[in-house]
Amino acid sequence: MRQSAYFFKTSKTAPKDDVSINARLLEQGGFIKKEMAGVYSFLPLGFRVLAKIENIIREEMDKIGANEMLMPALQPKENWLATKRWDSMEVLFKIDSQHGYQIALGPTHEEIVTPLATTVINSYRDLPKAVYHIQTKFRDEARAKSGLLRGREFRMKDLYSFHANEADLGHYYAIAGKAYDAIFKRLGFEAIYTEASGGSFSKYSHEFQVEIENGEDTIYVCNKCSLAKNKEIYTSESVCTNCKVSDYRETKASEVGNIFELKTKFSEALGLHYTAEDGSRKLVYMGCYGMGSSRIMGVLVEKFSDLDGIIWPAAAAPFQVHLIALAGKESSEVLASADKLYTDLQKAGIEVLYDDRADKSAGEKFADSDLIGLPKRIVISARTLSENSVELKRRDNSQAELVILNQIIKYLASDA
Amino acid sequence: MRQSAYFFKTSKTAPKDDVSINARLLEQGGFIKKEMAGVYSFLPLGFRVLAKIENIIREEMDKIGANEMLMPALQPKENWLATKRWDSMEVLFKIDSQHGYQIALGPTHEEIVTPLATTVINSYRDLPKAVYHIQTKFRDEARAKSGLLRGREFRMKDLYSFHANEADLGHYYAIAGKAYDAIFKRLGFEAIYTEASGGSFSKYSHEFQVEIENGEDTIYVCNKCSLAKNKEIYTSESVCTNCKVSDYRETKASEVGNIFELKTKFSEALGLHYTAEDGSRKLVYMGCYGMGSSRIMGVLVEKFSDLDGIIWPAAAAPFQVHLIALAGKESSEVLASADKLYTDLQKAGIEVLYDDRADKSAGEKFADSDLIGLPKRIVISARTLSENSVELKRRDNSQAELVILNQIIKYLASDA
Repeated sequence: MRQSAYFFKTSKTAPKDDVSINARLLEQGGFIKKEMAGVYSFLPLGFRVLAKIENIIREEMDKIGANEMLMPALQPKENWLATKRWDSMEVLFKIDSQHGYQIALGPTHEEIVTPLATTVINSYRDLPKAVYHIQTKFRDEARAKSGLLRGREFRMKDLYSFHANEADLGHYYAIAGKAYDAIFKRLGFEAIYTEASGGSFSKYSHEFQVEIENGEDTIYVCNKCSLAKNKEIYTSESVCTNCKVSDYRETKASEVGNIFELKTKFSEALGLHYTAEDGSRKLVYMGCYGMGSSRIMGVLVEKFSDLDGIIWPAAAAPFQVHLIALAGKESSEVLASADKLYTDLQKAGIEVLYDDRADKSAGEKFADSDLIGLPKRIVISARTLSENSVELKRRDNSQAELVILNQIIKYLASDA
Repeated sequence: MRQSAYFFKTSKTAPKDDVSINARLLEQGGFIKKEMAGVYSFLPLGFRVLAKIENIIREEMDKIGANEMLMPALQPKENWLATKRWDSMEVLFKIDSQHGYQIALGPTHEEIVTPLATTVINSYRDLPKAVYHIQTKFRDEARAKSGLLRGREFRMKDLYSFHANEADLGHYYAIAGKAYDAIFKRLGFEAIYTEASGGSFSKYSHEFQVEIENGEDTIYVCNKCSLAKNKEIYTSESVCTNCKVSDYRETKASEVGNIFELKTKFSEALGLHYTAEDGSRKLVYMGCYGMGSSRIMGVLVEKFSDLDGIIWPAAAAPFQVHLIALAGKESSEVLASADKLYTDLQKAGIEVLYDDRADKSAGEKFADSDLIGLPKRIVISARTLSENSVELKRRDNSQAELVILNQIIKYLASDA
């Protein structure tokens, strides 16, 4: 992508009203724009990051046999009355249509997926099943804050699974947990498995928490095994479910996933049954497995940055290479070499952002490059060309190296 | 995909409240489920169709240099007041947050993209630019009807372009129109280029209309050149803009795209300027280019079906091949051969839905297969295996043929 033609611009001005690292760097870097409190546009550069994260989630969900679908944001009020959440869910946006009815704007989709499952599941032969969707959800939060960490409108994956009994649910719950670990590993971080309140229908739920200074959750991590407890269920007498000792450290973290054994709570409220082998009608057991894709994008920035900007892990980076042409007014040779290298990189299947802007100084280009944080920077200039080379620098390393121009693609390919 | 494990089931019951072909076949075929009037879930089978359509749109938008992004559904009221559309846009859903403010739920995104462009466009050097997004939009329609043809919540692509002057806008407007034709061609149909009202800011807009019996628009198509006029601008004295004669036929059609030269209407209302080469500040010229991806899905079904079900064009089909195993209780040999063929088809990169259900008769499997309408059906049974063959039948052709089992993949590949 040529930077001169890209719908993108960095800013020297930090956002006034949000001091979080992710809000500052993502807004200044031209990834996102705040439209109102807790509501962001994802500009093309930021959209690419979000799409990378969501594609990784998609691949790992497909691997565990879940089918992708799309559910509506507009949800019938009667479903929410049936589960008694129309009044009890504090963050529910309620819409009064001018045509005389009320609608819920989906913060979550149990009220949709459970009745939907009645059209697909009828017999024990239809179980187990799993579906997921990656889409925009809405919460009427009193205080949206910390950039992408807590929004009124946000991107989320939800997986829902359906089982004949509690044992089968438990089996899939463990599989889903492993898929979560695989997703986070591919994105370059580890999440802490954290016991949290299960609400009214389960002893525990489990959260996947990422340690960051700006995290809004407080968790207590077992010093022996790393199984953690959320503050809401932690007391000074707490012992680790795993180690049976009480040896904790307190830390701040952000929750990027939360999984629940819903069991029969929603199938009972919304009438989801199946016919067992003995002919009896039984309630379907359900699990739900949430993961915030836009929040993960914010967490990545909180974790991977320095004073100059973001340091994207390769799997989430919008492009792998930032190619910078330092062509003064009379160095058409530099521009020609850069243009050719840009074409060659694309042909080699390497995602490249090409800073071909004619009206920016070297200093401005380097500052922008550090800010947006692509994994590798290639500089081509009269000086590097005098040695028939380009300068290669990794964003997470201060050392630059000269690489012979006609070997750079091979070098990058072997390094991927 | 094994049908036994897929989150999907066909239904013998037609929807009670919608007689349109697309609503009936898509609901009975297990592609979509109606959640409320004008609001649908896309089940995994239907989601695959929608994703195919949206990927084709995406590829053609990328080709004309537009950058994909994501805009919010929640939009600040003040932007809508600035364009005077808060009160005048009849279908606008308005949300009262419990925290004391009002929000618009986006039916379109000029009120977002125009202020956003002020952060990217400052100088003539920043022009032209183009961005698009494919996402869910909302309209508080008095009457949602005809399945996916008119919804309260629907999927749509909108492209917005930004130009230094009217001539450059006109140039891109023609390019975008050609991209639209390319999209429809790939999806297997042609749209009629139709002059329509331009509202308050343009002489004409142009619609892309598809002739279907169930279309809610009436258009008048020039018998000489096929340029059409929408009923809203047609009079009995109308002459064709192109041919200068008045020779029209009237037909019913559904609008799958609509493109507008917005010119400076929104840049003026929302303050989008650029600095020209002579240093003066000028208004940016804008174009907008809509396309309904979920409506296209409905239109495809309206156009391509017979009494038995849907006949998907290959580019939009959720899978290319429907593999059906007719294995009686004792024909484990048939099931083993079908399992192997299923694996081999997947290895060959052929998208296959595999009807491996043990509890369905041949008649039920054939009826389901015709209903969901994949381009090719392969039947494997004791009878075909006795000739070391499978039966291949195209959905759009009543003739079946026997193909030698170990040649079927080669045959399919050469036929693609």
